Amino acid sequence: MRAEVVAVGTELLLGQIVDTNSSWIGEQLARSGIDCHFQTKVGDNLERMVLAMRTALARSDAVLVCGGLGPTQDDITREAIAVVMNVPLVLDEDIVARIRTMFASRGRAMAANNSRQAEVPVGASVIEQRIGTAPGLICPVGQKVIYAMPGVPYEMHEMMDRAILPDLRLRAGDLAVISSRTLRTWGLAESTLAELLEPRIDALAGGGAGVPTIAFLASGIEGIKVRLTVKAASEGAAASALGAEEELVRAVLGDAVFGVDDETMETAVGKLLTEKGWKLGVAESLTGGLMASRVVSVPGASEWFAGAVVAYGTSVKESVLGVPAGPVVSAAAAAAMAEGARDLLKTDVAIATTGVAGPAEQEGNPPGTVFIGICLPGSDAEGVELRLPGDRERVRQMTVISALNLLRLRLNSR
Amino acid sequence: MRAEVVAVGTELLLGQIVDTNSSWIGEQLARSGIDCHFQTKVGDNLERMVLAMRTALARSDAVLVCGGLGPTQDDITREAIAVVMNVPLVLDEDIVARIRTMFASRGRAMAANNSRQAEVPVGASVIEQRIGTAPGLICPVGQKVIYAMPGVPYEMHEMMDRAILPDLRLRAGDLAVISSRTLRTWGLAESTLAELLEPRIDALAGGGAGVPTIAFLASGIEGIKVRLTVKAASEGAAASALGAEEELVRAVLGDAVFGVDDETMETAVGKLLTEKGWKLGVAESLTGGLMASRVVSVPGASEWFAGAVVAYGTSVKESVLGVPAGPVVSAAAAAAMAEGARDLLKTDVAIATTGVAGPAEQEGNPPGTVFIGICLPGSDAEGVELRLPGDRERVRQMTVISALNLLRLRLNSR
Repeated sequence: MRAEVVAVGTELLLGQIVDTNSSWIGEQLARSGIDCHFQTKVGDNLERMVLAMRTALARSDAVLVCGGLGPTQDDITREAIAVVMNVPLVLDEDIVARIRTMFASRGRAMAANNSRQAEVPVGASVIEQRIGTAPGLICPVGQKVIYAMPGVPYEMHEMMDRAILPDLRLRAGDLAVISSRTLRTWGLAESTLAELLEPRIDALAGGGAGVPTIAFLASGIEGIKVRLTVKAASEGAAASALGAEEELVRAVLGDAVFGVDDETMETAVGKLLTEKGWKLGVAESLTGGLMASRVVSVPGASEWFAGAVVAYGTSVKESVLGVPAGPVVSAAAAAAMAEGARDLLKTDVAIATTGVAGPAEQEGNPPGTVFIGICLPGSDAEGVELRLPGDRERVRQMTVISALNLLRLRLNSR
Repeated sequence: MRAEVVAVGTELLLGQIVDTNSSWIGEQLARSGIDCHFQTKVGDNLERMVLAMRTALARSDAVLVCGGLGPTQDDITREAIAVVMNVPLVLDEDIVARIRTMFASRGRAMAANNSRQAEVPVGASVIEQRIGTAPGLICPVGQKVIYAMPGVPYEMHEMMDRAILPDLRLRAGDLAVISSRTLRTWGLAESTLAELLEPRIDALAGGGAGVPTIAFLASGIEGIKVRLTVKAASEGAAASALGAEEELVRAVLGDAVFGVDDETMETAVGKLLTEKGWKLGVAESLTGGLMASRVVSVPGASEWFAGAVVAYGTSVKESVLGVPAGPVVSAAAAAAMAEGARDLLKTDVAIATTGVAGPAEQEGNPPGTVFIGICLPGSDAEGVELRLPGDRERVRQMTVISALNLLRLRLNSR
């Protein structure tokens, strides 16, 4: 079974909106074991939409069209599909009634335009809209099929899950499950990871069904992801193969692995702090609140996070955090900031960042010079120097994740 | 002149990476007056890459291929282009030498794999790499052309700007300039904006060359963008038409316009503070450092921003900011936080945020209940209530921009 995605909208081609829909759909198709070899973006133009759909139908069994189902004159996905099917559009009175009711329930009259959304190519079946006003379509073309769904992401997601993926699975017959698990790492270069795992990757080579594959995905400030993927007969068999593989890979990579799948560095830190019953305080100079804002993105962070001081100006470092006068881009200042935050915020643990985000140098230090301060119960505060590459924004982001990783390693060894 | 984009990479089809490259390229093409009617994603598979390029070449004059130029066995864009051109690949010793020198300058030996990056289809010309190791290619196919460039965004951007767009412009001959200017607004609904500007949009209808068009682009926490676009004979003519149009639109929208193009709300606030010579302090509860981190993203923010206190726990609000005991989700607490931040950080101006990001309610208030505290020289601190829609992350983001906008309006009226 092969499916393609055709994303419709001139704004996609002009770069006004990034097409995240196709990516999401691609992910769902892969999870359902359906191959997706091409994804196309096309503008709101009848002739070109028809060409894109015909090209896709020639290569694949199913075409998922996303967008162009709205009520305006620009929205011509229905017309384009009717051309491809070589059938007329007819007005579906049930849909008109449903849209009219929806407007009435909001105390508004249905605009005449909206009846366009009730037009259906002859021979197509309708996917009832649950959110929004645009119904979806399932349009048979010989032995093949075109699906149409709205471009609004949450309407599209709902319709994919409820109607389109089940229909695709049905058409494909008994499907293999393709399942992935991602181990997230920090601190090792991609080439080092590859070298460490080479024996295992060699052992898995040419494995086939039930045997995992290992791939690397460099993800910038999110670290390097090690993705385990397996094709298996059932969800259960896939999960068990992935579980066994995860254990082997973890044994090789040790504490470079900080999380699984969507687990972030800050989640990992939060778990460790919760285990120990410790509260965290933060002092930030060059990161300017970025660390704190990442920390509070973890649900329940208030259990282990007290707060932060963004000491951007030198006078705030001195007056609020009690940093002694002297160079503020230094290990001593970082350690003093951490101690100051711990005392002011009355926490057990504190981390601090100071350094040069750029573009200009500061106190004679080039951009990317960064010091992390860290203090834990029962030991002296320490200051650790980093040299980070990249522009202002990247230096900040790298500082935050490096600092959280350092805290994770220190907590791990306690 | 018509160009298409072919983005190469199985990870794009699987949704592991969102293809932002095609969007960016589409935007650059539009700005250069080059039509782009289709964009395709294809996996790392020789046959399908060849098919995608041939399909694109049949429809358009130029094909921009992005990705698949790396050193590994997966990276087969060079091979695919050679098939489409029907020529062999040859090793370019100059490129080998350059890559070897680059590795040597980092104290490393060049891996054998990297010599793959020095292979060039016969008849193609090389775009020298300035960043990274992958050179780009300009590959004539009859009267048409295929460009190949790396998939790493910043390497790709550099190569597009330096070599590919100039080459495309040259091939296209004398081009019309399509130029846009975006007025960024906050505080008015899209329907209100449309209603206010309807007379002007009607007056411009059917205008043609030299006459601007007006479009709206809802951009979530970035507000609603009003985009003015004009097609003109020269950059100068375009700029002058856009300037005149901007003046008319600003007269209608007043201070709902906070910036132009990439100008952010925090940049606008920084400008106003700099004019007045005032320093800003921030106190954050539910936004947890997000406001401070947006503020420090403005280059030169240290001139007008002193720092922030992230008072996430109630005890920090009381002990550090001197907020009186009582409900912390309240106008009084927000005002007290702002005053506390101004006193602690020794600034002229302060803003504060407190409220419920969700998912759980707090002190009997539902998620989305937010209070902004604000204090300015010579007036009492005030607390302003907002009701914001959306999930935890969205409530936070909306709080930050709403608070900054409130500060902007207050500074405007001083």
